[in-house]
Amino acid sequence: MNVRPVLFVIGLFLMVLSVLMLLPALYDFITDADGVYSFALSALITLLVGAPLYYFCRLPVFSLKPRQIFLLTNSSWFTLSAFAALPLYLELDISYTDAFFETMSGITTTGSTVLSGLDHMNTGVLLWRSLLQWLGGIGFIVLAVAVLPFLKVGGMRLFQSESSDWSDKAMPRSGSIAKRIVFIYLGLTVFCAYLYFLGGMNGFEAINHAMTTLSTGGYSTSDSSMAHFQNPFIHWVAIVFMIFGSLPFVLFVKFLRGDPQSLLRDNQVQAYLNFLLILWGLFTLWLFMNSDYTLFKSLTLVAFNTVSVITTTGYALTDYTLWGGFAATLFLCLTVIGGCSGSTAGGIKIFRFQIGARLLGIQLKQLAHPRACFVQSYNGQQITSDILRSLIAFCFFFALLTTTLTLLLSLLGLDLVTSLSGAATAVANVGPGLGDVIGPAGNFATLPDTAKWLLSVGMLMGRLEVITVLVLFTPAFWKD
Amino acid sequence: MNVRPVLFVIGLFLMVLSVLMLLPALYDFITDADGVYSFALSALITLLVGAPLYYFCRLPVFSLKPRQIFLLTNSSWFTLSAFAALPLYLELDISYTDAFFETMSGITTTGSTVLSGLDHMNTGVLLWRSLLQWLGGIGFIVLAVAVLPFLKVGGMRLFQSESSDWSDKAMPRSGSIAKRIVFIYLGLTVFCAYLYFLGGMNGFEAINHAMTTLSTGGYSTSDSSMAHFQNPFIHWVAIVFMIFGSLPFVLFVKFLRGDPQSLLRDNQVQAYLNFLLILWGLFTLWLFMNSDYTLFKSLTLVAFNTVSVITTTGYALTDYTLWGGFAATLFLCLTVIGGCSGSTAGGIKIFRFQIGARLLGIQLKQLAHPRACFVQSYNGQQITSDILRSLIAFCFFFALLTTTLTLLLSLLGLDLVTSLSGAATAVANVGPGLGDVIGPAGNFATLPDTAKWLLSVGMLMGRLEVITVLVLFTPAFWKD
Repeated sequence: MNVRPVLFVIGLFLMVLSVLMLLPALYDFITDADGVYSFALSALITLLVGAPLYYFCRLPVFSLKPRQIFLLTNSSWFTLSAFAALPLYLELDISYTDAFFETMSGITTTGSTVLSGLDHMNTGVLLWRSLLQWLGGIGFIVLAVAVLPFLKVGGMRLFQSESSDWSDKAMPRSGSIAKRIVFIYLGLTVFCAYLYFLGGMNGFEAINHAMTTLSTGGYSTSDSSMAHFQNPFIHWVAIVFMIFGSLPFVLFVKFLRGDPQSLLRDNQVQAYLNFLLILWGLFTLWLFMNSDYTLFKSLTLVAFNTVSVITTTGYALTDYTLWGGFAATLFLCLTVIGGCSGSTAGGIKIFRFQIGARLLGIQLKQLAHPRACFVQSYNGQQITSDILRSLIAFCFFFALLTTTLTLLLSLLGLDLVTSLSGAATAVANVGPGLGDVIGPAGNFATLPDTAKWLLSVGMLMGRLEVITVLVLFTPAFWKD
Repeated sequence: MNVRPVLFVIGLFLMVLSVLMLLPALYDFITDADGVYSFALSALITLLVGAPLYYFCRLPVFSLKPRQIFLLTNSSWFTLSAFAALPLYLELDISYTDAFFETMSGITTTGSTVLSGLDHMNTGVLLWRSLLQWLGGIGFIVLAVAVLPFLKVGGMRLFQSESSDWSDKAMPRSGSIAKRIVFIYLGLTVFCAYLYFLGGMNGFEAINHAMTTLSTGGYSTSDSSMAHFQNPFIHWVAIVFMIFGSLPFVLFVKFLRGDPQSLLRDNQVQAYLNFLLILWGLFTLWLFMNSDYTLFKSLTLVAFNTVSVITTTGYALTDYTLWGGFAATLFLCLTVIGGCSGSTAGGIKIFRFQIGARLLGIQLKQLAHPRACFVQSYNGQQITSDILRSLIAFCFFFALLTTTLTLLLSLLGLDLVTSLSGAATAVANVGPGLGDVIGPAGNFATLPDTAKWLLSVGMLMGRLEVITVLVLFTPAFWKD
């Protein structure tokens, strides 16, 4: 395989990253904070690696084959994390392992953190963390909308069916869609920041939280996360925009193009919103009856925390593990669900559950009426055996990855709940786990270094929908 | 739907059950124990319900349609449990809830128990518990071999592909096969009892444990289960015969018919035994390095406990949860795996993992080489989309059932580990869970009554491969 075009793009990405590092440097310079040097040095190092790659690997005609795209997707995500970790390593008093974990957690929009003392931290570092999540979020959507359909051209029907762009068939020009999506993403972020500002955040807090809300990332500028802001208005803004971040962005494009019903007519969106409403209703009732909260407070807490976990954002508003065994169990289940495909959310995704439920329903009808014939379709598309096969492969590997990670973490001496919830929260890109150590009130800093590397790998594989990473480790991939 | 033939068969079953109740009565009579009255009364009640059903629902020509078979399968399993619980309720000082839980746990070969003080319990009761497991085990195999293929005749290709009789295609006369299987089951039980006797058990212990070993049930005549017998020979006999109980019994028939290679050539058996050997090797090494046990003792403990859980038997030899978080996590994962299809074991079953792994492998190759064509077969059969669909439906519902049960148990106030491991151990028909309450050293007696009923339902649905039960609750089933 010719890796030159891959190295060329990575070089380009590193040069862009190097320019982006100047943003926090500039902010620190203006506010007279002391992070300027760290960011400038990191930008220089990144440029010194990126620029030669870019120039020496240039090709007269640039093109990428499917296998090169797989290699590029994996290596760029990994390389960008490695370099984006530099400012954290230089500016803060942490190991490179911690810096890499924090960066990977940011860029995959997971939101697990090893840092504490955020409230008094260098503002450039805070901005950098938020920026990483914001870029990771839009990067993932563009990957799903603009890159994966290209693989389809190479005969990748199998993968396309499993990828995150179920809905873009009607609009073939993926490049222009990607542009529109970036604008929508940017617009929603600005709007969200404005509302946060109205709710009482200062400008810096509003911008940072807006970036980590839309990307369903969940980094905050305060150790107490969203609990730092006691205005319910802010919490409800967060709830609404976290949901926006977990909807298929292609449908926003259609929405703005004059097809306002496309969003609500979509099978996945319908199921997702119905599920949220039922969950809120039942869980609010339970919390109201089992606590001293008012009904509105119960609803706010339930809506915020469930949406934070299901959209894989991971903001903390209250330590829900104190609500007892039922809440802990429920949140563990919610961890793996994930939002809609084609959004910034991670996890298994709603449509896979829908297809599972639909097949189960048909199976049951078929058992009762063996000679009848039942239509098997989803969003107007027939569920072909290609789709079935890729669904099984995805779910099987998702389960396998989570189980393996759980076992490896427990081998390092972590208890069952920490291992299981840690693996699930990493693979689904959520953020907080359960238990004293990594729960919503906890922090990943005290985990062993090996656990941090394992979780980093889990976050990356979870973000790239696992199979994209695994394919690199098959002998077939490297054979011509 | 005409329920007369269903009631007729249930009547017949109850009459047989009533006769079987005379066995412990007779044993108690001979040994001068005091359970005679309870068993005789239970037999009488059962007969008084069964006989009228049998006689009044008789039909000149007996035949069952697929839907009637579903109804029969479910209602007979449930009704038999309800009546078989009577002797326990009458003889012991327990509630009917406890008696029903114990019976359902027995008849589904789960092996979770609410009883303690087994060592000094009425011998008739002990015999009855073992008998229930033994009958439940063979009942399940006969169901898989003789009943489900009959549904196939009605066009049930879908279900057949998912059922437990992958291997019987070569031998269409399922009735005669069922007979042979019963003889093999009986023969293996007698042989196992003989070996237990040689190892130092008395006759009563040997017969009881042989019955609960071959049925992969796991009831014992002692509170300390297999730890009551300190002879490693007994433990290795148990290991070997638990494995026998979890192999496809149809292959034993082929084996005895002069095709000795059929067992070892079978894809599922190969994968199963290889998995066991690798697991034993790695886990023994880990235990040996992390404990004071000798290598042989480590191997015995590992082999016994892993086989006890994977075959869904549930004997206890040592409290493996004291080995730390890694062991607890590993045993939780092993709980859902299950043995081979067509055996007495519960759980997800090996072949479903194999198909998942195979599809993942093909998917990966296909991603790297989009234009290549890959064969998708298992044990020489093509993996059709019918099989894929039923596989997804099964796994989806298995996960849904376990999750729902976990949430409901946690709603009753049980902690996360107890809820999760309790749900998994019930649905997979294993026996012990994790945690202080229901762990291998624990007992289900202290759980709330509601939890016991929920777990009973979980055990039944797990045993009948979930979809068989669920089909009754669809409107389509009751429409003509």
